[in-house]
Amino acid sequence: MSASWWLGFDIGGTRTKAGVVSEDGSVRRTHLVETGHESFEVVWERMLAIADEALAAEGPDGLAGVGIAAPGVVEPTFGVRNLPGKVPGIEDFPMRERLEARLGVPVRCINDGAAATLAEWRFGAARGHDDVVGLTIGTGLGAGTIIGGRPLQTTNLAGGVSFGHATIAVGGRTCLCGNVGCAETLVSANAVVGRMRDYVARKVPSTITEAYGHDPGAITFRTLVEGVDAGDRVAKEIMQQFTRDLGATIVTAIHAYDPEVVVLAGGPMAQADHFLPQVQAYVDRYAFRYPKERIIPIRRAERSDHAGVLGAVARVMQSVADHAPAT
Amino acid sequence: MSASWWLGFDIGGTRTKAGVVSEDGSVRRTHLVETGHESFEVVWERMLAIADEALAAEGPDGLAGVGIAAPGVVEPTFGVRNLPGKVPGIEDFPMRERLEARLGVPVRCINDGAAATLAEWRFGAARGHDDVVGLTIGTGLGAGTIIGGRPLQTTNLAGGVSFGHATIAVGGRTCLCGNVGCAETLVSANAVVGRMRDYVARKVPSTITEAYGHDPGAITFRTLVEGVDAGDRVAKEIMQQFTRDLGATIVTAIHAYDPEVVVLAGGPMAQADHFLPQVQAYVDRYAFRYPKERIIPIRRAERSDHAGVLGAVARVMQSVADHAPAT
Amino acid sequence: MSASWWLGFDIGGTRTKAGVVSEDGSVRRTHLVETGHESFEVVWERMLAIADEALAAEGPDGLAGVGIAAPGVVEPTFGVRNLPGKVPGIEDFPMRERLEARLGVPVRCINDGAAATLAEWRFGAARGHDDVVGLTIGTGLGAGTIIGGRPLQTTNLAGGVSFGHATIAVGGRTCLCGNVGCAETLVSANAVVGRMRDYVARKVPSTITEAYGHDPGAITFRTLVEGVDAGDRVAKEIMQQFTRDLGATIVTAIHAYDPEVVVLAGGPMAQADHFLPQVQAYVDRYAFRYPKERIIPIRRAERSDHAGVLGAVARVMQSVADHAPAT
Amino acid sequence: MSASWWLGFDIGGTRTKAGVVSEDGSVRRTHLVETGHESFEVVWERMLAIADEALAAEGPDGLAGVGIAAPGVVEPTFGVRNLPGKVPGIEDFPMRERLEARLGVPVRCINDGAAATLAEWRFGAARGHDDVVGLTIGTGLGAGTIIGGRPLQTTNLAGGVSFGHATIAVGGRTCLCGNVGCAETLVSANAVVGRMRDYVARKVPSTITEAYGHDPGAITFRTLVEGVDAGDRVAKEIMQQFTRDLGATIVTAIHAYDPEVVVLAGGPMAQADHFLPQVQAYVDRYAFRYPKERIIPIRRAERSDHAGVLGAVARVMQSVADHAPAT
Repeated sequence: MSASWWLGFDIGGTRTKAGVVSEDGSVRRTHLVETGHESFEVVWERMLAIADEALAAEGPDGLAGVGIAAPGVVEPTFGVRNLPGKVPGIEDFPMRERLEARLGVPVRCINDGAAATLAEWRFGAARGHDDVVGLTIGTGLGAGTIIGGRPLQTTNLAGGVSFGHATIAVGGRTCLCGNVGCAETLVSANAVVGRMRDYVARKVPSTITEAYGHDPGAITFRTLVEGVDAGDRVAKEIMQQFTRDLGATIVTAIHAYDPEVVVLAGGPMAQADHFLPQVQAYVDRYAFRYPKERIIPIRRAERSDHAGVLGAVARVMQSVADHAPAT
Repeated sequence: MSASWWLGFDIGGTRTKAGVVSEDGSVRRTHLVETGHESFEVVWERMLAIADEALAAEGPDGLAGVGIAAPGVVEPTFGVRNLPGKVPGIEDFPMRERLEARLGVPVRCINDGAAATLAEWRFGAARGHDDVVGLTIGTGLGAGTIIGGRPLQTTNLAGGVSFGHATIAVGGRTCLCGNVGCAETLVSANAVVGRMRDYVARKVPSTITEAYGHDPGAITFRTLVEGVDAGDRVAKEIMQQFTRDLGATIVTAIHAYDPEVVVLAGGPMAQADHFLPQVQAYVDRYAFRYPKERIIPIRRAERSDHAGVLGAVARVMQSVADHAPAT
Repeated sequence: MSASWWLGFDIGGTRTKAGVVSEDGSVRRTHLVETGHESFEVVWERMLAIADEALAAEGPDGLAGVGIAAPGVVEPTFGVRNLPGKVPGIEDFPMRERLEARLGVPVRCINDGAAATLAEWRFGAARGHDDVVGLTIGTGLGAGTIIGGRPLQTTNLAGGVSFGHATIAVGGRTCLCGNVGCAETLVSANAVVGRMRDYVARKVPSTITEAYGHDPGAITFRTLVEGVDAGDRVAKEIMQQFTRDLGATIVTAIHAYDPEVVVLAGGPMAQADHFLPQVQAYVDRYAFRYPKERIIPIRRAERSDHAGVLGAVARVMQSVADHAPAT
Repeated sequence: MSASWWLGFDIGGTRTKAGVVSEDGSVRRTHLVETGHESFEVVWERMLAIADEALAAEGPDGLAGVGIAAPGVVEPTFGVRNLPGKVPGIEDFPMRERLEARLGVPVRCINDGAAATLAEWRFGAARGHDDVVGLTIGTGLGAGTIIGGRPLQTTNLAGGVSFGHATIAVGGRTCLCGNVGCAETLVSANAVVGRMRDYVARKVPSTITEAYGHDPGAITFRTLVEGVDAGDRVAKEIMQQFTRDLGATIVTAIHAYDPEVVVLAGGPMAQADHFLPQVQAYVDRYAFRYPKERIIPIRRAERSDHAGVLGAVARVMQSVADHAPAT
């Protein structure tokens, strides 16, 4: 089986990525396709072309399976079931059926937030653990969960994927999802940017207000880190809040899922030195765990470059293993 | 197999209950044992006596398995692993091993909070569903979770059991568990009683203050309901808060676990008419679900009388089914 | 004028106090009268008897004026205008008119919360200052204000007296006054007791829970201090909250009234070592003041033993001085 | 005295306004001077030129006094005592002394936030009342207070002026003044803009997000009103919050100062139909007042066009009246 390889796709709103992945998770070759605003049929044709190209390059015999990560509510053995407005035609598209018919190998689909966690579980920072929570701190707060050595899977397809919308601030602000006080309203790059913009609008003296008072649209998570490094009071206050709220979100994840390890991904993790030790301390102080001395490590994701591709491959690998004849 | 029966135990801090349970979940006979402050060895002897008595009464052939529900961190194939201070000797006691050796049938253990959910899943309000969350609103907030047709089970044994300690009010009050802002600090009979006692201490005009100003220790959840029925402003305010916080807790459970149905148990459910419709409305408004039109019903528990016994039996039943030879 | 003396009354819900006061604020003699549940006419007769007794003892010539402190909305040149239910008949009673007719000296009335501040301003910790705020941390949060060297006095009689009901926690809990989030809901002995009772009801591990779990009605502010001294986590948390909220209340008073000094009275001040330095630090950090280096000292009341009597006397003294012919 | 007139100045950060004011508050003539970034000496020369021009036009005999409104900490009989960085040289400038020496009439200075309230008290919506609170909802939250028929005046010069920094949300966000949870952090045009920017940054579906997602710097208070008119959920939520917080601020002002009437000024008042009735309802429900049936009306400012000029004139008028010989 040493020559076998896997194909992974990561469908995004603006572009789709494909990768040829070895059994051990090394990514041998990647392709990018513009997703644009075209109908999904067009995107699909480009994905097929990539598959053909990969088969031509790698040889037809080794392909063991195909995984597809996509945004929205995803049914593993079908494709995307719900993704309002983003990619026309994707909701009705039987990805798995079409691709299995064409390639003759197992195909599985997965939510892209969950994929990031599977990538870490199978190939990255959570390797070897059966109980894992992964959070992706991006424009929103993505989530994925492994329990008992398997991705959490529910009848209605959203198991573990919506955890970023756990209510951590009852009575809090409305989230883009319609709920109030979601973790995502406080723990995401956008939430932190929104908080900085509020201080700037109120002209609170700060390096941030000085630099971005006339262009609040240019504030990013990096702005916060620069402010903290400059010793700015407002930046430190917002960072503290972010740290506490991220800590509380992780404590909630621990109380909900009882993981052995938590993995964090997303843009802000490039500046994790500024908050990860404090978040770990918060979790060490407040999370219940058994045995008591156990530390639940909060780790940086290692496979973020190819999170979607690798998570999709991890998903189909698991399915293949499940159906393998016992030896 | 029609004549087979099961034995369930529900070990509590003050008393232990046993029940003979039919395949369909009907409880044929129950026994009560004082747990007292004695060492667990003494309690155990009484449990064995009950088992002997049941075998004598039912006949020795039909016993299919034994389930044991207990507080604390419970290992299904061992017994209690962690239960600080409550029942001396229980932490080291190999319940399953001892009982299997004696009775020759499968034995499984389970956390009592989780047991309540298993009872509803197998025999009660959540029958027929593969994804279930159960919450027990008692002195604390117990929880149990079924995902993909199986009780959530993790390496470190607390999966789903600690969900009552999800942080729903970041920056909130300290909980008995040591965390801050837990659902349990707001959604439990004790939390509601604590809130009433605060209003009484502050002499806020209210039927509650009038009736219990000189005896705040006598306030119970029922007091709240009576106040609401009397049109009392304070009671209505506290009930509203409770309703919202319970709603937010359930929304969080839905976003974490994606259940098809939520079951609520516990003393306050006797007055569920006063808050359940509002909680359902909160959930209908704020919970993400797919498909969109889907209602996630919040149901009253039906098997609360024997929750621990039935949940323990459900647990061992599942284990027996897992190990049954395929036909 | 060296031989002149003043008579002060402090009418309370359960007893009324009278005192003979020298020009310099020394209290030469005091009397106590039960206020009971009798009509105010009865109380008044007893007050007159005390006045007669005082005149007999001191000699009739020196009496310079009479001050009366009373709860509720008080009109200085009339008496009590509003005091729901507490002392029958007091609302219609023309105290000043009756007493001036009988004794032939100036009589003035004042709210008892404001009286405490006047006592400190004229005879105690705020002597020599023209801008003073006084807060009395008791079962509620009383307040009084001196601005520009005069007690704050408004057309509708409540000026400065209701400051304990400033909203410091928007969206907070209902106060006995009907408003929500009042300082009094957080900063009063009763509020602190209410908070402790909440933790006890929720069985949060604590020396307080241990000692008062079975008798929450016996918890007092002292309980908190004992818990802090014992290093108890819950007690420290509640004390921190109290300290912060008291600090925020004083900052609000400073931003509203711009005092030179703040004086705190009330039972909890006996334990002021446990919180006063922290409150001062909070105020030093957060209060705006001009000039910038200025410290606004937060002082302990010095005349609490006779606060009502002395404040009432201070009130009539000021009135006499106002009407004195210029020299 | 029917021919007498008054001169008022309103010194701002970018421009200074002057006006000739009749005894009855009608403004006969106004002038504008750029304040720019020049030293105050330059501005002063321009102010003198205006005074000369006015004297030439009105005739020299009728000038009864000059009032000067200015930002910062203002001493009535001196000028500005504290105004960090905004107008170089203004802090040391003896305005009153210089102008009295030159013109031979009484001159008085006043904080511009307080001036707005004096304008309403003497010439506008609060005419005839002795106890008045005025709030100006602008980029910040200005305040002024009349008590007992006189502007509140304290030794340290900030009496009533800092009320916008009353803490109404203990534990809240840092304000530009350095305090946390100030009314100004929630009740000001900038605070509302900051809140909208937060929702936009978090991409919460809304007409605001649609229109300003790419240009958050262009959001204004008007944006909120347009959103409410369009039925937008986010706009309605933010407006509700603003309404509640403004209500809580006014309740706090009432509990602090016991006014007969509250006057609101500032840009958002152009859209007062969208929130004033709700604010009045909040106040009617939550504010303590005596007598109970009394409504404390919350009125729109009537003299906002010349608030600073008229308030300054009101200030010097009062001073002249104080020093007038009794008749």
